[in-house]
Amino acid sequence: MGEVKDVPLLSELLKDSPKNWGKWGADDEVGSLNYLTSLEVIRGVGMVRSGKVFTLQVPMGAPEGDPIWPGRRTAQRVNVMDHSHYQCGKGPHFPGELHYADDMMIMYLQGSTQYDALGHVWYDDQIYNGFEAETTTGGMTKASVLPIAEKGVVGRGVLIDMARYRLKNVLDRGETFDHEDLMAAAAQQGVEIKKHDILIIRTGFIGSFYTMPSDNFYDNFVEPGLTYSPELVSWFKDMEIPNLVTDTIANEVTIDPVSGIALPLHSALMRNLGVAFTEITILDELADDCAADGQWAFLYVAAPLKVVGGSGAPVNPVVIK
Amino acid sequence: MGEVKDVPLLSELLKDSPKNWGKWGADDEVGSLNYLTSLEVIRGVGMVRSGKVFTLQVPMGAPEGDPIWPGRRTAQRVNVMDHSHYQCGKGPHFPGELHYADDMMIMYLQGSTQYDALGHVWYDDQIYNGFEAETTTGGMTKASVLPIAEKGVVGRGVLIDMARYRLKNVLDRGETFDHEDLMAAAAQQGVEIKKHDILIIRTGFIGSFYTMPSDNFYDNFVEPGLTYSPELVSWFKDMEIPNLVTDTIANEVTIDPVSGIALPLHSALMRNLGVAFTEITILDELADDCAADGQWAFLYVAAPLKVVGGSGAPVNPVVIK
Amino acid sequence: MGEVKDVPLLSELLKDSPKNWGKWGADDEVGSLNYLTSLEVIRGVGMVRSGKVFTLQVPMGAPEGDPIWPGRRTAQRVNVMDHSHYQCGKGPHFPGELHYADDMMIMYLQGSTQYDALGHVWYDDQIYNGFEAETTTGGMTKASVLPIAEKGVVGRGVLIDMARYRLKNVLDRGETFDHEDLMAAAAQQGVEIKKHDILIIRTGFIGSFYTMPSDNFYDNFVEPGLTYSPELVSWFKDMEIPNLVTDTIANEVTIDPVSGIALPLHSALMRNLGVAFTEITILDELADDCAADGQWAFLYVAAPLKVVGGSGAPVNPVVIK
Amino acid sequence: MGEVKDVPLLSELLKDSPKNWGKWGADDEVGSLNYLTSLEVIRGVGMVRSGKVFTLQVPMGAPEGDPIWPGRRTAQRVNVMDHSHYQCGKGPHFPGELHYADDMMIMYLQGSTQYDALGHVWYDDQIYNGFEAETTTGGMTKASVLPIAEKGVVGRGVLIDMARYRLKNVLDRGETFDHEDLMAAAAQQGVEIKKHDILIIRTGFIGSFYTMPSDNFYDNFVEPGLTYSPELVSWFKDMEIPNLVTDTIANEVTIDPVSGIALPLHSALMRNLGVAFTEITILDELADDCAADGQWAFLYVAAPLKVVGGSGAPVNPVVIK
Repeated sequence: MGEVKDVPLLSELLKDSPKNWGKWGADDEVGSLNYLTSLEVIRGVGMVRSGKVFTLQVPMGAPEGDPIWPGRRTAQRVNVMDHSHYQCGKGPHFPGELHYADDMMIMYLQGSTQYDALGHVWYDDQIYNGFEAETTTGGMTKASVLPIAEKGVVGRGVLIDMARYRLKNVLDRGETFDHEDLMAAAAQQGVEIKKHDILIIRTGFIGSFYTMPSDNFYDNFVEPGLTYSPELVSWFKDMEIPNLVTDTIANEVTIDPVSGIALPLHSALMRNLGVAFTEITILDELADDCAADGQWAFLYVAAPLKVVGGSGAPVNPVVIK
Repeated sequence: MGEVKDVPLLSELLKDSPKNWGKWGADDEVGSLNYLTSLEVIRGVGMVRSGKVFTLQVPMGAPEGDPIWPGRRTAQRVNVMDHSHYQCGKGPHFPGELHYADDMMIMYLQGSTQYDALGHVWYDDQIYNGFEAETTTGGMTKASVLPIAEKGVVGRGVLIDMARYRLKNVLDRGETFDHEDLMAAAAQQGVEIKKHDILIIRTGFIGSFYTMPSDNFYDNFVEPGLTYSPELVSWFKDMEIPNLVTDTIANEVTIDPVSGIALPLHSALMRNLGVAFTEITILDELADDCAADGQWAFLYVAAPLKVVGGSGAPVNPVVIK
Repeated sequence: MGEVKDVPLLSELLKDSPKNWGKWGADDEVGSLNYLTSLEVIRGVGMVRSGKVFTLQVPMGAPEGDPIWPGRRTAQRVNVMDHSHYQCGKGPHFPGELHYADDMMIMYLQGSTQYDALGHVWYDDQIYNGFEAETTTGGMTKASVLPIAEKGVVGRGVLIDMARYRLKNVLDRGETFDHEDLMAAAAQQGVEIKKHDILIIRTGFIGSFYTMPSDNFYDNFVEPGLTYSPELVSWFKDMEIPNLVTDTIANEVTIDPVSGIALPLHSALMRNLGVAFTEITILDELADDCAADGQWAFLYVAAPLKVVGGSGAPVNPVVIK
Repeated sequence: MGEVKDVPLLSELLKDSPKNWGKWGADDEVGSLNYLTSLEVIRGVGMVRSGKVFTLQVPMGAPEGDPIWPGRRTAQRVNVMDHSHYQCGKGPHFPGELHYADDMMIMYLQGSTQYDALGHVWYDDQIYNGFEAETTTGGMTKASVLPIAEKGVVGRGVLIDMARYRLKNVLDRGETFDHEDLMAAAAQQGVEIKKHDILIIRTGFIGSFYTMPSDNFYDNFVEPGLTYSPELVSWFKDMEIPNLVTDTIANEVTIDPVSGIALPLHSALMRNLGVAFTEITILDELADDCAADGQWAFLYVAAPLKVVGGSGAPVNPVVIK
């Protein structure tokens, strides 16, 4: 991203923005996921009606490429053992002659559907809960994705389909919305966003990756999404939202159109309030089903990989309706 | 593994062993997971009592190493961006000065807690459902882990603690047990293994990795586990077990002590019956909790990563009690 | 590359093309490099005049990217240890407190200046010297790059500057030339291409990578280069050229304009005659110097990395004038 | 390595040790390689007698493993395309049906025969020539291996066979020697170490890797090698040695037996004097030949890969006799 003149610093924009630091102790590394108590688990489980299951990860290592943040590389899978090795006499001999296939993958930990570590982004040299930014050096020793992966994320999920609400397949590039829009869409859907809900927002953006050449997708890359306002931050704080899940790569509009700042909600919601971010999900099939049966709230279960020191980790979230 | 004299071939041992090929259609790639219908999902959800959540993956990229099958390498995580880049002026400038950490991982797809693709192992040049072994070449185009990841695994899980049943912290190297032992242990636990249950077996073996130098763990590597018999295979078939989950690396005793064959259950259960294998879980904390509250059956939710063509994929399974 | 109608097969085009198979024994894996006897080494050494040294590799892992064949990925270097680890207390303690930096690289073996293994390409299921194509499966066990790396390449090199000859900075996309052009250019340069010379051809193409955005470089990717004719192949055979070195990615015009075949010289020269191919060198500085001092022949010394089973290996060739 | 009590700091041990910082300008990044002027190139070329060629790299990615510093991983090569892909219809179609093999490698840049960057090691937060240690963070921007690779290393090499001098196949673990020993061995060999010679020392250590199980090689890992003394450092300075090449992993005894410091010569010679270090060569075949023909001095030509920002880079050095 180019530098923009007269853009304020995050530390300036957010100088009065609320923080949940210390709320769950000085050592806390999972932030607003603490809201997901066993009671909330039970509340989520209580949403199950029909036993339908949806998985929200995008494919990894697809021939057509995967949707990723520009500058990262897509996951690359390579075989180290398969049928061909046995055909030409290079396979290992096991007693009884079992044959097997084996493979490796090289990946960015945030190069597919993933949970960000709460310490993934920062300003003013401090990450979530006031840990020093220096703890990220060479591998995160504080607020990495590991504690999130150890806890697991289980609760009541609610899907807000902003694209459908605006009568589009996909929101436009750079198109924004806020909490008022979310509530309006929820009302139209006939569902209520409740305190402690896992908030899942559909823009159609990730789904659009699969409908065009990838060069077009990345050309003039600006995502649609939530946009910053003090009121929106307060709403997230008051609603005690534990987890924000979207079908975009960065969960918010790429550049805040008011301040010109890149990705301010990463700081306002994740760094300051400890809201967990789940990015690059695909929600189109789930949304179609919810539109069909009218059930927009459900049990959401997700646990990213337990990567020690990870700034994020891939995940395949499960929705049970 | 060295070659052993007079060991029969898998094709010989299993020539009369039952198959579920074709049972769910010629194109089926998820096998016994087909038993997990929405009714079974509801049955699993019905097991939730207290809202306690457990995650079953081992850590990845731990400083002390991770437990893996000999010959594979442990996952390696490396930073590509962190606080130090900004300290020395090498970080990117975003409008507003957002800072972030980013990292990559190089991993074996079966180098942590993982689901095997149904086509991961074979004999006689055919994988699950009769697909040609040649389909594994260069990346699996049939019965890869992808369809499992797309479906997700949700149902009633039941934990059988064989170590506890035998009054040990860890089963001995090469120690075996069978379905009769499982049922006896279940009876003692006061739980019943029911048709279509996701069968989770604790041996203590993976937990033991973390109690000793890794050289000791790998020295004379022979795992404890289930052992082959025609009766055991019939039991799995009749019980319509969709998924076998253990805290060992290969879900069965390394060498069948009767035939001398390596890993015959991979063929008898996975290749022939389509039973999904989940390996390298850690079950110690869950087992302690079940022993404490007496609840050995629960909701099990797992979805491996959607790796296109993968012979397996890592997963962080979630248990909700 | 798209398929073209009515393009003949390589096996058809080259059915009467000469082969050096068996010429150096049934086990030979270095082909025409056998021409580089100790006498040829002495001949090369005899070309040294001033002691000037040139290195011909392109940079690897450059921020602006590296020139590679479309579909491959550029080399990626990542730090695993540096000053920042010591700054934040994560560095290892050595007695005396030595600090160090350490890094890894992920690379295509043909993703920089490199020697092709003689078995790198083939048609009709046979690679150089008649070895079965199956020997390439899972890693080359015949005619890999290893024997080339073990032998080393030392001899008299001669630079033919086709771009300069045609009064261009860079040859046009798809622009071709043949052995007659090479000899005409040599004559104008005042140098003779002699039997057993290492033939180095400058087109300016790799140098042009560094003068434009990489998207432009890859757009409608067609390289300039040598083009197939039976006479050109005979000339290479008669001149007993051990090694062809160019500043293009594939050492020949991408599509033969007569037959429509992709890269026929890889087969005619490398597979059939055993001519070693060195690709992706940068020759601009060397060419300027040769133009300035009129010395176009010199000692050439190159040894690719000894990669076991490699289909190629990176190299930084040295020219001594 | 464990910490040892009462071991002085490098900054203490070397507080009066000579430096060549600034000698070749404030921006110099190749240090003592500056001694290798074109005159020295000519001197090296003048050593060629018979035209025999030797390559000094160890194999990379060998099935039995490669010799590396404990804690690093051996290079891993993986195929991404080979004959098997065409066999099963997964190969790309090129006009004319050219087939090819392609592969990748994951490697430590110092995980095979390699040149260290002059900035690879340091103490007191400064690397060679006084550049800040911070310049190593995230990739070396000063005194990386790139300038060495761009220059190339060409000169008169002299082999001193310490193992042969001491009538051993391999020096003992931790066995030391110094410049006096080198000169005594040279005298017995009938060769003189001259000013500006590339100094190549054989211990037999790397060769021994290939004679034993690798566990034995790494067990109680202590290398034989040169050992620190102020006189030895002065000798290197006065002799203006441009490059130290050995068949050990770290070019010096692992722990200085006098001070208890790990690898002090890395600092005294490389960081302070700018002597280039070439490590993990294999010299056994070359040494046998030199012993047979009595020619211990020769032309040495080496150019590591041009890795941008690399702390080191692999190389396959060439000796021409």
